[in-house]
Amino acid sequence: MNGAESLVRALVRGGIETCFANPGTSEMHIVAALDRVAEMRCVLGLFEGVVTGAADGYARMAGKPACTLLHLGPGFSNGIANLHNASRAQVPIVNLVGQHATYHVRHDTPLTSDIEAIARPYSKWLRTSCSAPELGHDAAEAIVAATQGRIATLIVPADAAWGEGGVIAEVPALPKASAPKGADVERAAAMLRSGLRTAMLIAGSALYSKGLAAAGRIAASTGAKLLAPYPFTRMRRGAGIPAVERVHYILEQAVEQLKEFRQLILVGARPPVAYFAAPGKNAVLTSPECEIHTLASPDEDCAGALEALAAALSLDGMQPIAANAERPSLPSGDINLQGLAAVIGALLPENTIVVDESMTSGRGLMAATRGAPPHDWLANTGGSIGIALPLAVGAAVACPERHVLCLTADGSAMYTAQALWTMARESLNVTTVVFANRAYAVLKREFSYLGVGNAGPRALGMFEIGRPDLDWVLLAKGMGVPGTRVISLEDFARALREGFEGGGPMLIEVRL
Amino acid sequence: MNGAESLVRALVRGGIETCFANPGTSEMHIVAALDRVAEMRCVLGLFEGVVTGAADGYARMAGKPACTLLHLGPGFSNGIANLHNASRAQVPIVNLVGQHATYHVRHDTPLTSDIEAIARPYSKWLRTSCSAPELGHDAAEAIVAATQGRIATLIVPADAAWGEGGVIAEVPALPKASAPKGADVERAAAMLRSGLRTAMLIAGSALYSKGLAAAGRIAASTGAKLLAPYPFTRMRRGAGIPAVERVHYILEQAVEQLKEFRQLILVGARPPVAYFAAPGKNAVLTSPECEIHTLASPDEDCAGALEALAAALSLDGMQPIAANAERPSLPSGDINLQGLAAVIGALLPENTIVVDESMTSGRGLMAATRGAPPHDWLANTGGSIGIALPLAVGAAVACPERHVLCLTADGSAMYTAQALWTMARESLNVTTVVFANRAYAVLKREFSYLGVGNAGPRALGMFEIGRPDLDWVLLAKGMGVPGTRVISLEDFARALREGFEGGGPMLIEVRL
Repeated sequence: MNGAESLVRALVRGGIETCFANPGTSEMHIVAALDRVAEMRCVLGLFEGVVTGAADGYARMAGKPACTLLHLGPGFSNGIANLHNASRAQVPIVNLVGQHATYHVRHDTPLTSDIEAIARPYSKWLRTSCSAPELGHDAAEAIVAATQGRIATLIVPADAAWGEGGVIAEVPALPKASAPKGADVERAAAMLRSGLRTAMLIAGSALYSKGLAAAGRIAASTGAKLLAPYPFTRMRRGAGIPAVERVHYILEQAVEQLKEFRQLILVGARPPVAYFAAPGKNAVLTSPECEIHTLASPDEDCAGALEALAAALSLDGMQPIAANAERPSLPSGDINLQGLAAVIGALLPENTIVVDESMTSGRGLMAATRGAPPHDWLANTGGSIGIALPLAVGAAVACPERHVLCLTADGSAMYTAQALWTMARESLNVTTVVFANRAYAVLKREFSYLGVGNAGPRALGMFEIGRPDLDWVLLAKGMGVPGTRVISLEDFARALREGFEGGGPMLIEVRL
Repeated sequence: MNGAESLVRALVRGGIETCFANPGTSEMHIVAALDRVAEMRCVLGLFEGVVTGAADGYARMAGKPACTLLHLGPGFSNGIANLHNASRAQVPIVNLVGQHATYHVRHDTPLTSDIEAIARPYSKWLRTSCSAPELGHDAAEAIVAATQGRIATLIVPADAAWGEGGVIAEVPALPKASAPKGADVERAAAMLRSGLRTAMLIAGSALYSKGLAAAGRIAASTGAKLLAPYPFTRMRRGAGIPAVERVHYILEQAVEQLKEFRQLILVGARPPVAYFAAPGKNAVLTSPECEIHTLASPDEDCAGALEALAAALSLDGMQPIAANAERPSLPSGDINLQGLAAVIGALLPENTIVVDESMTSGRGLMAATRGAPPHDWLANTGGSIGIALPLAVGAAVACPERHVLCLTADGSAMYTAQALWTMARESLNVTTVVFANRAYAVLKREFSYLGVGNAGPRALGMFEIGRPDLDWVLLAKGMGVPGTRVISLEDFARALREGFEGGGPMLIEVRL
C-alpha cells in the first residue's frame, strides 16, 4: 500500500469521512487514493476559501473534523482567512497539503514555497511527513490534535504519497477537555449567591450542548443573565431553550448592555473587548467595577463546568429558563431591515441551521427569531469576511436532513461566492439571502465613528461596492443556483418559503 | 500631520501613484489620508487576490511599484497566492497592512493575528512601524526595498496612523542592479565562439528592454538560440523583434526542445527543471552533456549583461534577428484550439498587452502570434492559478492607452473572478477570453502521466468543474461586464474585434 492510501485509510479509521478538496498536481496520488476509498466523501470547492470555510461549518455541526486537501503553499494561503475564523471557532480541522517530492524542493521550481512557514500561524499542530511509512501515523496524530478543537496541518511530500510501505495506523484514544478546578466552581457559586448583579458570558460548545440547560437552571435560580460573545461558534436557541443574549458589536451599545453587571463569570469566553480600538476610547466593555471570574477557559470542559456549577448550587430539579414560543406576524410592504427580520422570524422552520454574516443588515435578526422553533445559529467567529457561504456548504454536508439558511452581506459574499457552485453540484439544501446594500456599510459607519471627518468621494469609492451594481441573481445562475430578487416583504416571504420547500440551493437577493 | 498622511505623502514623493485597496476598520485613517491626497489613484478590489495580482500587473507594465492596502492578517492572507506569483516575477510591490492599535493587540480580539508571521514568507522587506513619526521613513525604505524587484510589507498600527508627528521622508537614491562580473561575460563569449550548439535562457527585464536587442544581435551573429522560461514575467515580441522561444511546460516536450544544446547561458534565469517531480523521471530538462553557465543572476542587471556580452563579441553594428511580419489567415468553422489561436494571431492589435493564463487551451497561442504586430506578453510566473484577471486589471491601469487581451482558463478565472467588477468600475480596456473546457484539464493529464491509473468517478469529480456548467456570460454581466458566448470561429473573430474596438471591458466565453 502506498503512503497516500495509508493516509486516507487512517483518516477514515479515525472517523474522518468528508474531504473538502481543491487538489493540484502534487496531490495526484492522494486523489487516486480517495478514488479508491469509498468511505470518504469528496466535495470540490473552486477556491480554497470555500474548502476551509466548509470544513469549519462541517465541524461546527458534525462535532468532528473533516479534512481538507490543498495544493502546496498557495493553496493553503487561499484558505487562511477562513482558517483564521475556524481557529477562533475552536473547531477541529485536519488540513492535508501537498508538497513537492522531497528531492525536488531544492530546484526551487515556480510553485516551491516554505509551506511550514505559511501554515504555522494557523496550525496548532504542524508536521511534514518524511516518507510513506510515517503518513498513517502522522494522520492519526493529526486527528488527535484536531479533536482538541485545533487546526492540524499535515504536509505530504509527493514521494511520501507515492512511496510504498504505508501503514494504516490506529488513532489513539482521543483526549477529553479537562474539568475546571473545584475552587473556580466554588468561587462562581459564591458570586451567584452574593446578590450582586451577575452575568455569565458563555462560549464554545456550552452554547449548544447539555451545558446550555445547566446555564438555564442557574439563570432561573439566581437571576443571572446569560450572555454570548458577539463572535460565537454555534448557539442552540428558540422556543423552550434558555435564551442567551449576544453582546452587541457596537461599543457604546455593548457598554450600555453590560454596565449593570458587577460580576461576570466567563465560561469558555474571553473578557469582552471591542473588536477595534478608537482614539480616546476605552475598548473594555465591562464596567470598571465589574469583577471578572473565569469558571472555565476555552480549552476546558465548559459544559461540564456549568453542570458542576449547577450541582454546587443544588439545582438538580430546577427547570431552566426557557424562551417563549412566539413569532413576529408576517409583515408586508416595502423592504426594510426590521420587516426582513420579522419575515425570517415568522417562517423559520424547526431545526434550521442559520449561518449569519448579515453584518449591518442583520442586527435585528436574533431578536426576531428568539421564540421561533428550535434552531442552531452560526456566527462569524474571527471577523474575516467571506465565511457565510462556505460555512453553509459545510453545515449542509454535515446535516443533509436539515434546512440551512445562509444570511450574508453582499460585500462578504463576494469574497467566496464560488461556494454557490458547490451548493449546486452537491444539491445542498441551502437558501442564501444576500442583503445587497452595495456597500461595506460597516466601514462607512466606522469612518465617522473614528472621528476622521466626512468621507469624500475617494474614501466613499472604497466603501461603496455599487457602480456597477452586482447582480446576485445572475451570479447565482452563472454558478447553477436558481435565484430571485425581491422588492417587497411579501415577495421575500414567498421566496423564503420556496427556498425552504425546494430541497436544493436557492438565492434571494434583497436590494436595500 | 498624522502618521497616515505622512505615509501616503511619502509614497507619492517616492513615485507611487496607484493604490490597489481593500481596507477595513483598522485602515480608516489611511483611507482618510488617501481621501485627501489626490495624487494617489485608489482602485478597489472586492477581494485581496485581485488587489495583489493587480499590483503585480501594474509593476510589470509601469516598471515601478504600486502599493496595496490590506486589512490585517486575513486581508494579507487572501492576497498571498498572487504575491507568490509576484515574488517569482521579481516585481516591486509595497504592501500596506493595517494592524490594531499597539495597545489593543494584547486583548487578542477576533481579528488579531501575528501579521509579521503571516507576511514574512513573501515579504523580502518587512517592518511594523511603531509610531507616527516613523511611518514616512519606513515608507521610503519600503520603496527602496521594492525597487530591487522585491515585495516590501509595511505593517501600520492604527495608533501610528492616527498619531500626530508624521514626517514626509525623502526617498534615498534608488539602488541599481549590479553588473555581472567581467569573467562571466568573457566565459559566455568564449562559449558562443566555441561552435558548440548553444542556447541563451533569458528571464526578467532582459525579455522586454534594450537587453532583448542585444540578445538578438548575439543570436544573429552566433546562431545561438534564444529561449525564455515557461514562467516569464513579460516578453516583448512580434514582427521585427527578436523571437524568443518559450521552454515547453510538458517535460518530454521540453527535453526534446533542449536536447540539441551542449551549452546553456543563463541570463536572469534558473536552470530549467520541470514544475513537478514524477516517479522515476528526471526533472532536469537539459541534456546531461549540457554545460550551464550563469551570465547574470536574477538580481543582477540582465539587460546590461547582454549588452556587455554583445560588446565583448564586437557586435555593435550587427542587426538583431527579427521575427517576420506574418499572421495566420482568419480561419472559420467549428471552435478548435488551433483555430482560436489563429484568430487571435490574425487580429491582435499593435501594442496589445496579452495576459496569458490559458493553461492547456493556449499551447498554440505564442506560435500563432509570433509575427503579429509588436506586443507584450505576460505569463503566470509562480504557477498559482487565478492570476490573469487581476494581472489584466493592473496592466490596464498602468497603460490606459493600450489594449489588454486577457486569456484565461475557466478554472483559473473562478479563483479571482471579482476582478471583472474592478474592470467594469474603472472602465478598463480589457477583453477577457475564457477558455471554458469545464475542467482542471491539466490535472486530468497529470493523473495519467504520474502513472496512478485511470481516474475513476471520484477523481474525475475533482478534475471536472462542470455539473453544473459555469455560465461566464451571466457571471460577467452580474459584475457589470458585457459578455458573449461564441460557437464558431467566425463568432469568435467578430467578438474579439468588438472587444478591441469597445474601449471598455468585455468577456468572451469559448465553450470547448
